[in-house]
Amino acid sequence: MNSFGNIFRLTTFGESHGPAIGGIIDGCPAGLLLDASLVDAELKRRREGDTPSPDTTQRREPDQVEWLSGFLDGKTLGTPIAFVIHNRDHHSEDYDALRDCCRPGHADYTYMQKYGLRDHRGGGRASGRETAARVVAGAIAKMWLRTQGVTLQATHQGYIITCTVHGLPAGVGEHVFDRLNARLAYAVLSIPSASAFTMGEGMDDWRLSAENYPDQWVSQGQGENLTATNHCGGIQGGISNGMPVVFHVGFHPPVTRPDGMVCRCPDGTLKQVAPQGRHDGDHSSRLPVIVESMAALAIADLMFIHTVPHL
Amino acid sequence: MNSFGNIFRLTTFGESHGPAIGGIIDGCPAGLLLDASLVDAELKRRREGDTPSPDTTQRREPDQVEWLSGFLDGKTLGTPIAFVIHNRDHHSEDYDALRDCCRPGHADYTYMQKYGLRDHRGGGRASGRETAARVVAGAIAKMWLRTQGVTLQATHQGYIITCTVHGLPAGVGEHVFDRLNARLAYAVLSIPSASAFTMGEGMDDWRLSAENYPDQWVSQGQGENLTATNHCGGIQGGISNGMPVVFHVGFHPPVTRPDGMVCRCPDGTLKQVAPQGRHDGDHSSRLPVIVESMAALAIADLMFIHTVPHL
Amino acid sequence: MNSFGNIFRLTTFGESHGPAIGGIIDGCPAGLLLDASLVDAELKRRREGDTPSPDTTQRREPDQVEWLSGFLDGKTLGTPIAFVIHNRDHHSEDYDALRDCCRPGHADYTYMQKYGLRDHRGGGRASGRETAARVVAGAIAKMWLRTQGVTLQATHQGYIITCTVHGLPAGVGEHVFDRLNARLAYAVLSIPSASAFTMGEGMDDWRLSAENYPDQWVSQGQGENLTATNHCGGIQGGISNGMPVVFHVGFHPPVTRPDGMVCRCPDGTLKQVAPQGRHDGDHSSRLPVIVESMAALAIADLMFIHTVPHL
Amino acid sequence: MNSFGNIFRLTTFGESHGPAIGGIIDGCPAGLLLDASLVDAELKRRREGDTPSPDTTQRREPDQVEWLSGFLDGKTLGTPIAFVIHNRDHHSEDYDALRDCCRPGHADYTYMQKYGLRDHRGGGRASGRETAARVVAGAIAKMWLRTQGVTLQATHQGYIITCTVHGLPAGVGEHVFDRLNARLAYAVLSIPSASAFTMGEGMDDWRLSAENYPDQWVSQGQGENLTATNHCGGIQGGISNGMPVVFHVGFHPPVTRPDGMVCRCPDGTLKQVAPQGRHDGDHSSRLPVIVESMAALAIADLMFIHTVPHL
Repeated sequence: MNSFGNIFRLTTFGESHGPAIGGIIDGCPAGLLLDASLVDAELKRRREGDTPSPDTTQRREPDQVEWLSGFLDGKTLGTPIAFVIHNRDHHSEDYDALRDCCRPGHADYTYMQKYGLRDHRGGGRASGRETAARVVAGAIAKMWLRTQGVTLQATHQGYIITCTVHGLPAGVGEHVFDRLNARLAYAVLSIPSASAFTMGEGMDDWRLSAENYPDQWVSQGQGENLTATNHCGGIQGGISNGMPVVFHVGFHPPVTRPDGMVCRCPDGTLKQVAPQGRHDGDHSSRLPVIVESMAALAIADLMFIHTVPHL
Repeated sequence: MNSFGNIFRLTTFGESHGPAIGGIIDGCPAGLLLDASLVDAELKRRREGDTPSPDTTQRREPDQVEWLSGFLDGKTLGTPIAFVIHNRDHHSEDYDALRDCCRPGHADYTYMQKYGLRDHRGGGRASGRETAARVVAGAIAKMWLRTQGVTLQATHQGYIITCTVHGLPAGVGEHVFDRLNARLAYAVLSIPSASAFTMGEGMDDWRLSAENYPDQWVSQGQGENLTATNHCGGIQGGISNGMPVVFHVGFHPPVTRPDGMVCRCPDGTLKQVAPQGRHDGDHSSRLPVIVESMAALAIADLMFIHTVPHL
Repeated sequence: MNSFGNIFRLTTFGESHGPAIGGIIDGCPAGLLLDASLVDAELKRRREGDTPSPDTTQRREPDQVEWLSGFLDGKTLGTPIAFVIHNRDHHSEDYDALRDCCRPGHADYTYMQKYGLRDHRGGGRASGRETAARVVAGAIAKMWLRTQGVTLQATHQGYIITCTVHGLPAGVGEHVFDRLNARLAYAVLSIPSASAFTMGEGMDDWRLSAENYPDQWVSQGQGENLTATNHCGGIQGGISNGMPVVFHVGFHPPVTRPDGMVCRCPDGTLKQVAPQGRHDGDHSSRLPVIVESMAALAIADLMFIHTVPHL
Repeated sequence: MNSFGNIFRLTTFGESHGPAIGGIIDGCPAGLLLDASLVDAELKRRREGDTPSPDTTQRREPDQVEWLSGFLDGKTLGTPIAFVIHNRDHHSEDYDALRDCCRPGHADYTYMQKYGLRDHRGGGRASGRETAARVVAGAIAKMWLRTQGVTLQATHQGYIITCTVHGLPAGVGEHVFDRLNARLAYAVLSIPSASAFTMGEGMDDWRLSAENYPDQWVSQGQGENLTATNHCGGIQGGISNGMPVVFHVGFHPPVTRPDGMVCRCPDGTLKQVAPQGRHDGDHSSRLPVIVESMAALAIADLMFIHTVPHL
């Protein structure tokens, strides 16, 4: 259950304060040139945000990706691509105060209920650090999408991320359960803190009157000029129509409080706990690259399914 | 790609004006009593809405479910449950005007781009009629969920459906990609016309300040009294915490216009087409049962995965 | 768990003496012409065998396939193909003597252990009748394979079926777990009574000395002239090499005894039970078409995976 | 397509002469104690065989497993278990003579046809070295199976491996496509060089007369005393019956010739190539642990599916 995708599939692993995080990308075609600088640039965006602020720059060391398989002479072999990012600078003793209690708004309590034990150090598997593996895989997906003329760009405004996909051909998305919008929502709502999703119209004005809703055809229009408006966000009946695909993701604010939290003890009593270990302030400037990465994985997978040759 | 679920899995088939629609439910435990009256009541809700209005009552004939396999003496066998609903009263000649042109706001154009041909009669596979199969399967899921003490209720307000799940134990949902919120969004955004999703807070006020967001523990609280508020909608880190699960789904208005539409011809030119065949006015009162059905399928599947026995 | 295949996927349903058996074929490309006569001919082969004998002809009525979805004007739509074969002439009271006891060599005891209840009438889901759905789906797979120049032919000798696939291009099969030979074995060993499988060499002489084993290249050879011998059965490293693919399947003899059986009662005691209902003598002449069908499903699925476009 | 299993799932990566091989095990329950000595012992069996001979001992250095995630304080967390074995002592220049030509009996030609390029060094992904990842994962599966009372033991005789599973409860295996015998065949025929499989009876005498075939019940018998004989190898109708599960796997001999090979050039011409790099003589004594590992993975996965709670 740590995999995403049917044909182009990412499987991830790693706890925040364990030895490493990483993943395996399966289903990447042979012959794709590795653009290592893109991977580094994307990881830098995730670490520092597109608009670096004092809040988000405290962990200065760059993430180093180690490629373990899947390449020869800088090209993909068609075999699984495995990568590892080793964790550094982790003072796990910082978290001893949390070993036996559960913070509000975090995954502590639910992990204990699910597994009977948990890695209490910095969130363990539930940490936002896990998203670095998504960004590496998303960069590989973007490299392949570029060969198909598809690009993605996400921007943030407060805690709303708007993502636009250009160049996606008509016909991508399956017709019932695996609609393009359903797969995009599945992909981006798996990002920690994500809590809202809309297609087309903005997060706060997603409703239109029935008269205005349907996008009217442009005579002889096609591709990104197919319709006069794009209220549907480039998707009709769950399938791309050639217009730009546009969607929005809303995130809730960080739940780690700089002034400490009232935590739950195993016997159900509460106690005040001072802040522990690393923690982040506003993280919204880091979110666009994570949204782009998950969208790239979802779209690449659907494109592989779509391009199964028809008669 | 016409399947939903990993262990408790629904596969559907059928075009709106073909001989029948239906599906196969795989992974349902043996020994479950079939409550045929629940299935009928749910199909009636889908057909007429929870609050019947003149707009939604034109198709009066009830849908008759034919069970083809999976039962003996009224109990499930543990083998696949197949069911069929035959289509009736379909005047497919009504749609001849649409054979060669694509309506705005519908799946006509994208199906043509994807498959090179399409069933033009009443939307074919893209028709809302396909949701009847989801409702039948959702009713089976609800029967099993009832044995676990889990119930769902959805209500509508304008085009926003709010769904609340009671009795879900803590620990349901996987920790990275298959989070409970991500699977719920995937499930309900695959419903035709669905375009928005939020967890916890309402569709139009999903944002809270960072100070107010984290739900505080109740001392000694558990189950539906675990936290003082429920801003997170019963999900922490993608896993249920025992509080009621609450989410909202936004739908766009119907795109079939009673006064006709400007359609796109194969050569890219446009023409006015008069309204064809059956069409619906306001359909919002029918949506709650469909949302409940998809949520029931998603939750049952995650519960089966969760209850894989731990040590 | 009643599905086979990843992209070209069959899901089946139905008990031997329930209302019907059938299935859903998902992933079939749009635009494929339905050859209904092939389906009928294949079902006739399954029912009567390639070499009809008195033993195998007692059920004379042909199986009638009802197509429920996926076609328009005789061509596939790209949507799921659902089909049903209604069961007829079933006298389920014939099996009352077996309601409470388990025959030797059948699935009676294991179904009771697995599900806590079972359909005792004629084997229920464990009956060989379920293979009719495989044959219908296999015929659809063969129609698509024909458009790619791929044909299959199986012959029987005693209880050994030898199947040869012609026209399969090099490159089909995945390199680690989903090797062509592993998928073929998975496919055909799921047929009731199948108990042995070999690639290349015959069932009883599958071993060769190390000196003779590797097939030597023919200078400038390609396709079906690539190598001087074909000991490997057309598969190197799990992937087709362009030579004919050859494999063998061994079946155990029928376990229904015409003179009755000593059965196991719920309390563990034994009792003699006279023969019940329909039963078959030698069924080996029916097996080739079932082996071909499962092989066609496995190969079509791997071809769709293979043809995911490379760079 | 580099994954095996539905709930308990292994995904592997790595080329023989790349930086590393390894894998991710998903779906392992939380709280399982890691027995590192078992992993080391199993890897030693794979490296040296159960009966070490001069042929199989040339690579003396032990494989060192590095655990990257999934454990805390020596217990599984329920999160993915990632492991890496770094490749050492690889002189990839040894293989330059093979860069442009394809050996007989190897995967060289089929990889070129499938991917358009290949890692020519020591077999790349097609190397038997990849099986080390299966053995590590198989050891984890065995640790869990031990907690359920299930053990496996395989022995070799010439190139036939016989594997016996003790303690498997009745009811494991799905009833149509995912039969226990079909999943076992799928699992073990994915091992390099595997070419034959039988259930129950031996590889060379798998046929019995119809009179002798069905195993007769023992009065009041159960578990490993259920039937008087075990011709069916502990499986009836694809589901375990509580008797020992017994199957056999046949392998073809090594195809790397110590005296060189006639290889195929890109233009189709042939040339003699001297032996390159490391190569193995008789490897049959190494096969039992690999067969056990794949069988353990297949059985653990089916047990998780089976233990999905019934009503």
